[in-house]
Amino acid sequence: MTDTVKHMKWWGWGNDGVGFHHEDKPGFAPFVAEKVGLDLHTAERAVEPSFDDLDVPASTAPEAFVSALAGIVGDDHVSVDDLVRVIHTYGKSLRDLVRIRGNQILRSPDVVVYPADEAEVQQVVDAAVAADAVIIPFGGGSNIAGSLEPMPAETRTVVSLDLGRMRAVVDIDTDSGLARIQAGAQGPDLEAQLNSTGWTIGHFPDSFTHSTVGGWVATRSTGMQSDKYGDIADIARGLRVVRPGDVLVLRPLPSTSSGPSVREMILGSEGRLGVITEVTVQVHRVPEKRNIFAYFFPTWEAGITAMQAISESDASPSITRVSDAHETGFTMATSKTRSGFSKFTAETALPRIMKAKGWDLDKICLSFIGYEGSTAHAKHQKKLVDAIVKKHGGMGVGEGPGLLYDQKKFDTPYLRDFLLDMGAAGDVSETAAPWSKLLQVHDAVYAAADKAYAEIGVTGWIMSHLSHSYHSGACLYFTFAFVFQDDPLSEYDTVKNAIQQAFVDNDATISHHHGVGREHAPWLEEDISSEGVKVLTALFESADPGAHFNPDKVVAD
Amino acid sequence: MTDTVKHMKWWGWGNDGVGFHHEDKPGFAPFVAEKVGLDLHTAERAVEPSFDDLDVPASTAPEAFVSALAGIVGDDHVSVDDLVRVIHTYGKSLRDLVRIRGNQILRSPDVVVYPADEAEVQQVVDAAVAADAVIIPFGGGSNIAGSLEPMPAETRTVVSLDLGRMRAVVDIDTDSGLARIQAGAQGPDLEAQLNSTGWTIGHFPDSFTHSTVGGWVATRSTGMQSDKYGDIADIARGLRVVRPGDVLVLRPLPSTSSGPSVREMILGSEGRLGVITEVTVQVHRVPEKRNIFAYFFPTWEAGITAMQAISESDASPSITRVSDAHETGFTMATSKTRSGFSKFTAETALPRIMKAKGWDLDKICLSFIGYEGSTAHAKHQKKLVDAIVKKHGGMGVGEGPGLLYDQKKFDTPYLRDFLLDMGAAGDVSETAAPWSKLLQVHDAVYAAADKAYAEIGVTGWIMSHLSHSYHSGACLYFTFAFVFQDDPLSEYDTVKNAIQQAFVDNDATISHHHGVGREHAPWLEEDISSEGVKVLTALFESADPGAHFNPDKVVAD
Repeated sequence: MTDTVKHMKWWGWGNDGVGFHHEDKPGFAPFVAEKVGLDLHTAERAVEPSFDDLDVPASTAPEAFVSALAGIVGDDHVSVDDLVRVIHTYGKSLRDLVRIRGNQILRSPDVVVYPADEAEVQQVVDAAVAADAVIIPFGGGSNIAGSLEPMPAETRTVVSLDLGRMRAVVDIDTDSGLARIQAGAQGPDLEAQLNSTGWTIGHFPDSFTHSTVGGWVATRSTGMQSDKYGDIADIARGLRVVRPGDVLVLRPLPSTSSGPSVREMILGSEGRLGVITEVTVQVHRVPEKRNIFAYFFPTWEAGITAMQAISESDASPSITRVSDAHETGFTMATSKTRSGFSKFTAETALPRIMKAKGWDLDKICLSFIGYEGSTAHAKHQKKLVDAIVKKHGGMGVGEGPGLLYDQKKFDTPYLRDFLLDMGAAGDVSETAAPWSKLLQVHDAVYAAADKAYAEIGVTGWIMSHLSHSYHSGACLYFTFAFVFQDDPLSEYDTVKNAIQQAFVDNDATISHHHGVGREHAPWLEEDISSEGVKVLTALFESADPGAHFNPDKVVAD
Repeated sequence: MTDTVKHMKWWGWGNDGVGFHHEDKPGFAPFVAEKVGLDLHTAERAVEPSFDDLDVPASTAPEAFVSALAGIVGDDHVSVDDLVRVIHTYGKSLRDLVRIRGNQILRSPDVVVYPADEAEVQQVVDAAVAADAVIIPFGGGSNIAGSLEPMPAETRTVVSLDLGRMRAVVDIDTDSGLARIQAGAQGPDLEAQLNSTGWTIGHFPDSFTHSTVGGWVATRSTGMQSDKYGDIADIARGLRVVRPGDVLVLRPLPSTSSGPSVREMILGSEGRLGVITEVTVQVHRVPEKRNIFAYFFPTWEAGITAMQAISESDASPSITRVSDAHETGFTMATSKTRSGFSKFTAETALPRIMKAKGWDLDKICLSFIGYEGSTAHAKHQKKLVDAIVKKHGGMGVGEGPGLLYDQKKFDTPYLRDFLLDMGAAGDVSETAAPWSKLLQVHDAVYAAADKAYAEIGVTGWIMSHLSHSYHSGACLYFTFAFVFQDDPLSEYDTVKNAIQQAFVDNDATISHHHGVGREHAPWLEEDISSEGVKVLTALFESADPGAHFNPDKVVAD
């Protein structure tokens, strides 16, 4: 394996040796016991799986083809090794982890290749197409929509094309605020390169620590500060995409009316239109001030309405986020010892004030709102927002909780893995809808999850927050958890499918920022209509008539 | 002809009886005489052309087909009348007007149909496809990229599908700031409907008085306040598009990661993927305050740098615009009697101040910057902008000139027609590029135009402004004029082609907001690369295999 490319654990999220623990969160175990009936003191934690127990399908790559690839990238950068191939088999969805831990690998890539630059990517692509092979581009491997896996029925050679060696910030156009970045650059790496000269991309998705700029484009990622910096569709201005025989080049333009947007076809294409090798992104000077303040609202309705009012106002915060009562309860219950919220339920000052206001403590909703820019700008925005919060019955509680949120924002996937170790599902489903539909979507998803839990016969949990505000609507992000009974994946499907169906039945989209892959493809037609799917299919089939590029993703072929 | 649908003059821009006149602009005639050698006192103005002099190609629509269409929309709403067909033959580009005034109509639509609603559009489309006819959607007819004309070699029946009867604001979702509007609604009509309940679309392109929301989407239009409201690609959230057999429905979503964006494929598609029947757009409360202030900069470089600094700052004006020295000179020279600038060249206060600052009056650049929102917001934004202007050596001159600009902003096409009457070309070419390239693009276009004028052997004029700022760049808008010598269209091509080539040679796009059509298609490959054109062609050919929808536009088939 190319020793310069670091991969996540083959069986879970993140770096080896890093995991979730709850010893410093006294409220966590009681909360889990109460909400999903899992006793963390008695439940047995699964041991780390042994790679030797896996049945890895043998590589069927012809030797001559592997030699040809080695001729392009060098012997050190092509591999048919089982571990390397297993690492490139799945992303990191709950379904992926259940399967890989359960020795369910029906199909693996036959060969993994790590090109050094775009010229090598072009040669690999051309060699693969000439050999009638399939190419699946691979970035950080953090995908949770099933976009990375080879189809079990695929009989052709499958090449996983890992962009991990291509991770440089090539150039910064300081006048234009544009940076050319190789597609394989992961969040921390590219941000460090930008920061070193005073710049930031401002794009911080939950997967930031292990995802790449190419992957963000391929799946239409959104970062936490999208209210200020935009989604990746706004941030990515220029693209280079290797296709058979030539590179598709979209120069960085602030805007253009050159027909249907090819840039917006590459965005979300999940490898189906070629291999993204370089992205020119908008970058900003690291702001003088960046802070996140916490607020409470008496109810979810009040919180949503306040966020809508902020989006309609002249204020321009960088983050708008409000948790529903369930998620607020979870946050309060699972705070670390010595953090502000761990003693919230006692008769401390804050709950006393809330009760004096007539608030029902079971209904309160925690909100985070961020401000970035010059110190004066951040202060002015906060003043505008504070007035709107007040008008909608909310109250500010300072910067402390926001700091905690900012510090632990990338830790959630480790918690998901921990629950899985304990025999429980913990996963997410997210969507976006117009402001007028958000309460309806929220209620429908809760009802759908409850119905699904009843079907399975478990006590399940669901919680939600609104984040990423736009003029006309926002993202709703749901987290659900339950203890597996007999058949984890079937039970998981029951819950997840119910939630996804509730999305499309209530004018919400199948995904706001996780992409389609295999996971959300069954609802695509209900999202963009059958004619929309026809147009998309027409694009894929005609632009890749040999189905060499990650076939069966987004729409099934 | 459907008597409820109003059309522009068949031979020029705008309403009958409305035209440009310069009697109240004492500096206009001397300016024109000096810059392009045209003496407006002696030149003979062309008389209004007579429709009877036109050779209109006979309709070849089979009678049974016309009857079938009448069966769908009613006898009153289908026409094979020559005048109606001529009105639907071209848009309003300079090339279109030269051809139509010169009796150059090689091909006209064979039949014009005015459906009442989407169901009728569906029936018309299905009947046309079944009859192997060609469908060209028609909105306000203001297109200047050649997107509306039937191909001369087309042997099939050509249907012009006029959306003019479909112009209602169907519904406003006040919580979400979203309005459903039928595609045929023209600017003033839809804005009046929105204003009546306190809303605005905030989209005011130069063509506003005669263009439709469907046309804006089909060509990727941009309005003057795009810095605040966004381009139509940002504004248009939901779409309904009639395709053979069914309607493509994209529900209004604030954002989504449902694969390559079908919405962004319809945007800029110029009728090639179907007939847009409805657009759900973002709407905003009519702002409490809306004003435009004028500024001067000592040089073009200072003006551009200031606009870049504003875009990078925390300020959020609604309009950023700066004219180069040529356009500034034109504006000053052609102001109305009694307006502030008509006496600028005399020793009035303003030029005295500028000279005291050491400014060269031949190099000064006029800028307009707009502010919208609450009164406090507009005031605060102006304060932020004023500081940046000052830092870059500029000076504010108050609100008066901005008011004039706002009042006459939609008059430019009438001036173009007036020059044509007098035997001169006056036309525009616009682009967008990163901030770092704008000066280079500007210089290259000037050099290209000068070279073209020398080739033709004329004294030509060119001027430019920057407008529509984005984080990473802006639009440059060029206006050029010269007196026709022997062969108007060939001479026009010499100049226009030189400018377009300068765009793509200098990292600028073929069009920022006019679309591609036939006019800019020759440079598409140099803009989006040959692989980009391949992907676009794949989309069109596969989504419309029978080439029924406005073939040969955007890319030639």
